[in-house]
Amino acid sequence: MLKRLGAEFLGTFWLVLGGCGSAVLAAKFGGDGNPLGIGLLGVSLAFGLTVLTGAYAFGHISGGHFNPAVSFGLWAGGRFPLKDLVPYVVAQVLGAILAGWILFQIASGSPGFAIDPNAAGAFASNGYGALSPGGYTVAAAFLCEVVLTAMFLVVIMGATHPRAPAGFAPIAIGLALTLIHLISIPVTNTSVNPARSTGVALFAGSGALGQLWLFWLAPIAGGLLGGVVYKWLGSEKG
Amino acid sequence: MLKRLGAEFLGTFWLVLGGCGSAVLAAKFGGDGNPLGIGLLGVSLAFGLTVLTGAYAFGHISGGHFNPAVSFGLWAGGRFPLKDLVPYVVAQVLGAILAGWILFQIASGSPGFAIDPNAAGAFASNGYGALSPGGYTVAAAFLCEVVLTAMFLVVIMGATHPRAPAGFAPIAIGLALTLIHLISIPVTNTSVNPARSTGVALFAGSGALGQLWLFWLAPIAGGLLGGVVYKWLGSEKG
Amino acid sequence: MLKRLGAEFLGTFWLVLGGCGSAVLAAKFGGDGNPLGIGLLGVSLAFGLTVLTGAYAFGHISGGHFNPAVSFGLWAGGRFPLKDLVPYVVAQVLGAILAGWILFQIASGSPGFAIDPNAAGAFASNGYGALSPGGYTVAAAFLCEVVLTAMFLVVIMGATHPRAPAGFAPIAIGLALTLIHLISIPVTNTSVNPARSTGVALFAGSGALGQLWLFWLAPIAGGLLGGVVYKWLGSEKG
Amino acid sequence: MLKRLGAEFLGTFWLVLGGCGSAVLAAKFGGDGNPLGIGLLGVSLAFGLTVLTGAYAFGHISGGHFNPAVSFGLWAGGRFPLKDLVPYVVAQVLGAILAGWILFQIASGSPGFAIDPNAAGAFASNGYGALSPGGYTVAAAFLCEVVLTAMFLVVIMGATHPRAPAGFAPIAIGLALTLIHLISIPVTNTSVNPARSTGVALFAGSGALGQLWLFWLAPIAGGLLGGVVYKWLGSEKG
Repeated sequence: MLKRLGAEFLGTFWLVLGGCGSAVLAAKFGGDGNPLGIGLLGVSLAFGLTVLTGAYAFGHISGGHFNPAVSFGLWAGGRFPLKDLVPYVVAQVLGAILAGWILFQIASGSPGFAIDPNAAGAFASNGYGALSPGGYTVAAAFLCEVVLTAMFLVVIMGATHPRAPAGFAPIAIGLALTLIHLISIPVTNTSVNPARSTGVALFAGSGALGQLWLFWLAPIAGGLLGGVVYKWLGSEKG
Repeated sequence: MLKRLGAEFLGTFWLVLGGCGSAVLAAKFGGDGNPLGIGLLGVSLAFGLTVLTGAYAFGHISGGHFNPAVSFGLWAGGRFPLKDLVPYVVAQVLGAILAGWILFQIASGSPGFAIDPNAAGAFASNGYGALSPGGYTVAAAFLCEVVLTAMFLVVIMGATHPRAPAGFAPIAIGLALTLIHLISIPVTNTSVNPARSTGVALFAGSGALGQLWLFWLAPIAGGLLGGVVYKWLGSEKG
Repeated sequence: MLKRLGAEFLGTFWLVLGGCGSAVLAAKFGGDGNPLGIGLLGVSLAFGLTVLTGAYAFGHISGGHFNPAVSFGLWAGGRFPLKDLVPYVVAQVLGAILAGWILFQIASGSPGFAIDPNAAGAFASNGYGALSPGGYTVAAAFLCEVVLTAMFLVVIMGATHPRAPAGFAPIAIGLALTLIHLISIPVTNTSVNPARSTGVALFAGSGALGQLWLFWLAPIAGGLLGGVVYKWLGSEKG
Repeated sequence: MLKRLGAEFLGTFWLVLGGCGSAVLAAKFGGDGNPLGIGLLGVSLAFGLTVLTGAYAFGHISGGHFNPAVSFGLWAGGRFPLKDLVPYVVAQVLGAILAGWILFQIASGSPGFAIDPNAAGAFASNGYGALSPGGYTVAAAFLCEVVLTAMFLVVIMGATHPRAPAGFAPIAIGLALTLIHLISIPVTNTSVNPARSTGVALFAGSGALGQLWLFWLAPIAGGLLGGVVYKWLGSEKG
């Protein structure tokens, strides 16, 4: 069990360091309007690749959740035992916080680095309303996070189904996370993962912390929904 | 059969939510000329990833068509029974419409959101002439949709051929859709999929609805052509 | 044999339609300086995806060369019989020309479409000196095409080696072509494929036609070199 | 052994030619601010694809390290014999230098090509402080290179673990290198590979040569750390 938790810890560390790290360090490289920066497309790719690579590296140890909403969803879908849920979530959140801390150390090494706790997307944090990158309402943000997390779980459960081609699940799941970011960074800066939101909110400041509830509630609700939907869909061929 | 239709419904929902969603929400993020937005490249990737991920998640349930032109083409190619054609197409169109509706709810949560029914590509709709993103004629649009859908079917039938490497078809097919978008978004905003066109045209308004005929006719004609061509090419080794 | 030639014809058609098509139609969409266009990155991805998807679709029929330099190189590497060389090359060139023609029909449907035969990269043509996108000399262009085609053949022969993982070769080979374009579009607009150069030069006009010799000579020389190098490297474990 | 060293030589040649080549030739194509250039995202993709394609082509010959930090890390992780360490590193450095030389020949064929040895990222060199693309301190640069190389080794050892899906490791490892670049080009221009740093520093001039020590020390330290961590994590299921 210790190694499984170590794998979840490191995998979530990688997710936050890579996804949020690319957003903080490289998205706007060269300044606003400079096409050298990797933009939303690069950040979307980075998030997906953390999961693609992490799932190949750690999947055979822990299953490769790296995300409390995934652990909840797989439990709802009958693929993950309830007794492991709390330890997994704790390991994920701790890994995310360590990544936030390391990222803060690196980012602080740049001249002029500063975090504005009232700016949307500060330190790659998630937000709605005034803290949504595109100014989306709390209702739109909630709907978006629920629907996308639900579909994320559907893809996860489908791609790891016994009848799906073996070995390809990390590609499908990682690139599903890329796709989710391609859609929704403007809405909430994309969470679908409470650990990821927590890991950077602690460093982003009061604004992000005050909105953190939504990025626990909506992804977990979506994860449960997706788990239940696929549980029906993927059961005995109908 | 209910689960197969459910898989086609959800898969087409995912295709439209992800592909058209990325176009509506993220393509021009930050305003015209801002390189933060994902642009045509990001939208092309998003469309492809909906099919790549959907095919791994649902392919073992329904075959993973998510597109009436694909269902028609696979029938022409001898891979899909005529009796399932209508139910599949109905499930696909319904999934696409639900995606259009959800996307409309999310997009409406942004300040200043509005759809101009006379603008090319409004709400990610397809069009020709005045409604083509690049102002392409109806003849160029028709030719483009026919040829690209035909090649899409050729890739689908080839990559799922018994002699092709097993398990890789979702990668080949999804990335073929990315490629098709990389070529043709300027021409028609890229359909090759009547359900996708219908799902957003209902919300885009009168302009897109008036041109919807082409995005049923051309993709299905192309799908039939591609199915017949590969049926010959892939038959007993010659 | 007819079906093998049909596969090479269609595969090379797809390579030129997709790669050159994305360059002509979408690279600069919205005008110079508009980040909506797919740029060199999008064109690089498109070229690679034509081969990735084509190799999954046609590889089990013809081997999936789609390129005279590949056929020559595989012959030098001992993987392809001399007697098939000429028919393969003829089928490839014809497929490339058809793609150039179709692309010309589509592109002509845009208002203000025109080809300047003295402009670098006109209609996605290859060139050196005044016709190199970055103004590179003929010597730099020749060196670049030789080295990159040689490495392309090395990757092709390595990824299809009996000891390489089965089924992954189209991914490795297609993405190698993407990589080659990421490096060298500024130098020669990237050929490494005489059929691709020919298919668009016929429509690009006198400038590209006058420089076509280099894009037959250098890629074939590189292909032969790469084939010979890998023949030694991949033989009985040393 | 000669063929294994030849594979490491050619693979590292490919890594530097492709990764640094795309940075030097194509990253800023068209001039500062021109979105046609491939930017940091394109360079990140190029680096990853050199390893993805090289690992499929050469992995079955030499294991596909292409990087002294990887060879050190795999030794620390118990996967690579000490006696092969020096020959591998020598072959890697020589391949990197040849790539730097060829790249210099090609780049010199462009009008106005010049290297400013005091500019950050000159000729794709790595640096910190005044030679960091984003002006990051030596401490931030060191931390960044150690952590990312450690995670690189964790992914490499995890994806090639006997319990990981067979054949997918080159995808996971190559795209991990893409991810690493998406995060850290602004910090150090991304090394995680002493051979890559050396191959271009020789041509970039005095600035890069004076900072080369960090790009040997930090990646190797990180590689050893990652090797040890995964050795524990991936051992008998706990």
